[in-house]
Amino acid sequence: MIQKINFSTPKRDVMLDITNKVEECVKESHITSGYCIIYVPHTTAGLTINENADPDVQADMLNALDRAYPWNGNYKHFEGNSAAHIKATTVGFQQVVLISEGRLLLGRWQGIYLCEFDGPRQRQVFVSVFGEK
Amino acid sequence: MIQKINFSTPKRDVMLDITNKVEECVKESHITSGYCIIYVPHTTAGLTINENADPDVQADMLNALDRAYPWNGNYKHFEGNSAAHIKATTVGFQQVVLISEGRLLLGRWQGIYLCEFDGPRQRQVFVSVFGEK
Amino acid sequence: MIQKINFSTPKRDVMLDITNKVEECVKESHITSGYCIIYVPHTTAGLTINENADPDVQADMLNALDRAYPWNGNYKHFEGNSAAHIKATTVGFQQVVLISEGRLLLGRWQGIYLCEFDGPRQRQVFVSVFGEK
Repeated sequence: MIQKINFSTPKRDVMLDITNKVEECVKESHITSGYCIIYVPHTTAGLTINENADPDVQADMLNALDRAYPWNGNYKHFEGNSAAHIKATTVGFQQVVLISEGRLLLGRWQGIYLCEFDGPRQRQVFVSVFGEK
Repeated sequence: MIQKINFSTPKRDVMLDITNKVEECVKESHITSGYCIIYVPHTTAGLTINENADPDVQADMLNALDRAYPWNGNYKHFEGNSAAHIKATTVGFQQVVLISEGRLLLGRWQGIYLCEFDGPRQRQVFVSVFGEK
Repeated sequence: MIQKINFSTPKRDVMLDITNKVEECVKESHITSGYCIIYVPHTTAGLTINENADPDVQADMLNALDRAYPWNGNYKHFEGNSAAHIKATTVGFQQVVLISEGRLLLGRWQGIYLCEFDGPRQRQVFVSVFGEK
């Protein structure tokens, strides 16, 4: 079963912590041991894992990506959002997280983030849980 | 079962849309629900997902990677292709895509790309499908 | 079953070849056909696959990441290690490698690397093997 979760992103670049939503899907699946595939069906938004404590980390990461891949970069694509495409490819479009004792086996400081690089938009995340009950 | 598909890449940097080849593997597997692991066994080529419409996006992405990781960058590796190694690590070596109703559950604008960073070469992609028939 | 392996990283930026440790987990699982999920529960260390021959490749890759994401980059995060966070997101936190005939189906030149970006530290890697015996 694949759960599809909707998110509204509030601005051009933002990292939304979706860990709780993913954890809910794991609970509803009643899978106790296995793994969870989290997937974004977009091309200018991605998924990553990173620190869930100081929100400055997310701001710094988004700024660092913006310096590595500037929005105005002499691109050919008519929509003007090529930087968002390469940023999404950099962070990736899926995460696979192990499940142990019915919970995501994240590290102590890890959260799962939907990374918006061309917002604000409506976005979707697919979550599918595999393993043994 | 692991299918191995061969590709010839025509130049140093290129993104080849391999979506149809992967979709064929999914069909041949008769798996209707599950996921597909796509993997490249190389170190200077990678795999990503991105826009399947305007080819300018791919050109812009390759240029953006080239600016972030210039080919001539005071590298030590004797082969002179260290930029290709870090680009491949940036995009990644595998993609995991969910399968629903016997098809890859890609987003509307998503295609799967073999990313060549040190071509032209002969490359291989492994495709393996898991789930229920 | 999830195996947890401990590593000590000797300096700030380093790539540790953990292929043999992962291969041992595959052997111990007695899985002959399937895949292996390798996962780091950290936010300033990641996992990648890359060349296992010339160690200059690893040095060049770490330097290239350092140029793309400089350590001193006008960051807000109080710990001062934001560059490590974005580098870890760039390489990724998990790798999924196919298994064939009881072995990791790596390419000839591929090794699996724990990427430390804020060492020296104690790090952990989770390895879980799925498939048929």
